Amino acid sequence: MKLCSFTKDGRASWGLVTDAGIVDLGLRGLAPTLRDFLAQGDLAPAQALAGAAADYAFDAVDHAPVIPNPDKIICVGLNYHAHVQETGREQTPNPVLFARYAGSQIGQGQPLIKPLESDEFDYEGELAVIIGKEGRRIAEADALSYVAGYACYNDASVRDWQKHTHQFMPGKTFAGTGAFGPWMVTADEIADPTALHLQTRLNGQIVQDTDVSLLITAIPRLIAYCSTILPLLPGDVIVSGTPGGVGARRNPPLWMRDGDICEVEITGIGTLSNPVRAEA
Amino acid sequence: MKLCSFTKDGRASWGLVTDAGIVDLGLRGLAPTLRDFLAQGDLAPAQALAGAAADYAFDAVDHAPVIPNPDKIICVGLNYHAHVQETGREQTPNPVLFARYAGSQIGQGQPLIKPLESDEFDYEGELAVIIGKEGRRIAEADALSYVAGYACYNDASVRDWQKHTHQFMPGKTFAGTGAFGPWMVTADEIADPTALHLQTRLNGQIVQDTDVSLLITAIPRLIAYCSTILPLLPGDVIVSGTPGGVGARRNPPLWMRDGDICEVEITGIGTLSNPVRAEA
Repeated sequence: MKLCSFTKDGRASWGLVTDAGIVDLGLRGLAPTLRDFLAQGDLAPAQALAGAAADYAFDAVDHAPVIPNPDKIICVGLNYHAHVQETGREQTPNPVLFARYAGSQIGQGQPLIKPLESDEFDYEGELAVIIGKEGRRIAEADALSYVAGYACYNDASVRDWQKHTHQFMPGKTFAGTGAFGPWMVTADEIADPTALHLQTRLNGQIVQDTDVSLLITAIPRLIAYCSTILPLLPGDVIVSGTPGGVGARRNPPLWMRDGDICEVEITGIGTLSNPVRAEA
Repeated sequence: MKLCSFTKDGRASWGLVTDAGIVDLGLRGLAPTLRDFLAQGDLAPAQALAGAAADYAFDAVDHAPVIPNPDKIICVGLNYHAHVQETGREQTPNPVLFARYAGSQIGQGQPLIKPLESDEFDYEGELAVIIGKEGRRIAEADALSYVAGYACYNDASVRDWQKHTHQFMPGKTFAGTGAFGPWMVTADEIADPTALHLQTRLNGQIVQDTDVSLLITAIPRLIAYCSTILPLLPGDVIVSGTPGGVGARRNPPLWMRDGDICEVEITGIGTLSNPVRAEA
């Protein structure tokens, strides 16, 4: 099942994505938001409407981030060897975590915003993990049962601001830089998230290409580690890390510019596509 | 004016702190939460009740973090020379920013939780700045007009987890480690936040003691810098940094332990006091 969030005629809602379009589940009163629906702990009311007629064509809404209002977005850095190598850093025994604020997110088709303050605007295609139930100190063996689903994420980064100090966060949470979509695919359809393949394309050119099995810290351990720190809640998002091939580490560097199109495609999920717009 | 958040008989509310106790402003319908009240942009309805009879003694409620549900908590690291020196790090031209998640916060009198996973539980007394109105790319000269008020913060840190990698966040957001209180004092009563004096005491012993004028990046520039990244919203919290004297840099180290009492006092604001409890 594919679930998404959107705005239609100024009303924020969420729904089920079928081959025919979107079935508006907010309008049908299942829950006010997708996060609230996940917190109910039962996907059956949405599944029961899988055969309903679509209310809108998929492109007839303004897409929002899959979860517009998560309690937490936890980003993982340096989680593929090829990316660790290109940065010249050392691999650490524990995952590298930093935060993105929810207000920095955008949905499918919305513009990635290159801020006025920087020309070093970089893509980072990643697999996003969406939590489905609350848990603290979750055991690795149980961790995947806490996952509601998976989506594509473009953790777009303002590299000079990321390097203002040793702490990454400023370059990782500019307004309009966290693309999250086009929908989430529920975990029942993705038995093994390591069997996925991820590709990032800039203007159609493949710039990142990896098997998700190459994650250094795999998803169960990420969930165990993060939930040791504080409880994970339904709708929380773990953005699992980007593979090699980022623009900053190319010679010459490859930055995203006004008018570009950046896509993140993950097998079994779909393709997140966003134009790039430079602030004037 | 002093404003606080609390729970009374299981009902979350907020109110005005007077010499006689708390006037419950949630009960009087001014706004559901203190964050919502700040977003209304007018403190007059609270000021008009400054003479009202107290509904409860100050200690007859369960105190919550001053803002329990901020959109963003932005923490500043290494922002006093004495602390930069004791860590052996270099001063950076831009502020060191990292995030704390709202769910890690506690209120006045609530226990600071030393987690099972660590014995390196450290205090960090800090001045918290609470934003009163939305703004992006706020000019330094205008920045203080965006401040709703100030409070004490104990940004308690799990040092070994902070040092798992180069990114601080995991050690900075454990459940029950961000003490925020005892109330906020509105900005009209603090014309110059640099004129404040901050002291942290562990079991009555002074462990940190500084003039806030010694901040490396002063509050107006912090607001300008943070709001360049993404909009600041009413209720957002900037935790401005800790002075020298942290437990980790003493010889031998001084860690917080079960049964300790940690206080952060700031002149013109008040004293935040929390017991320390070790998870069993």
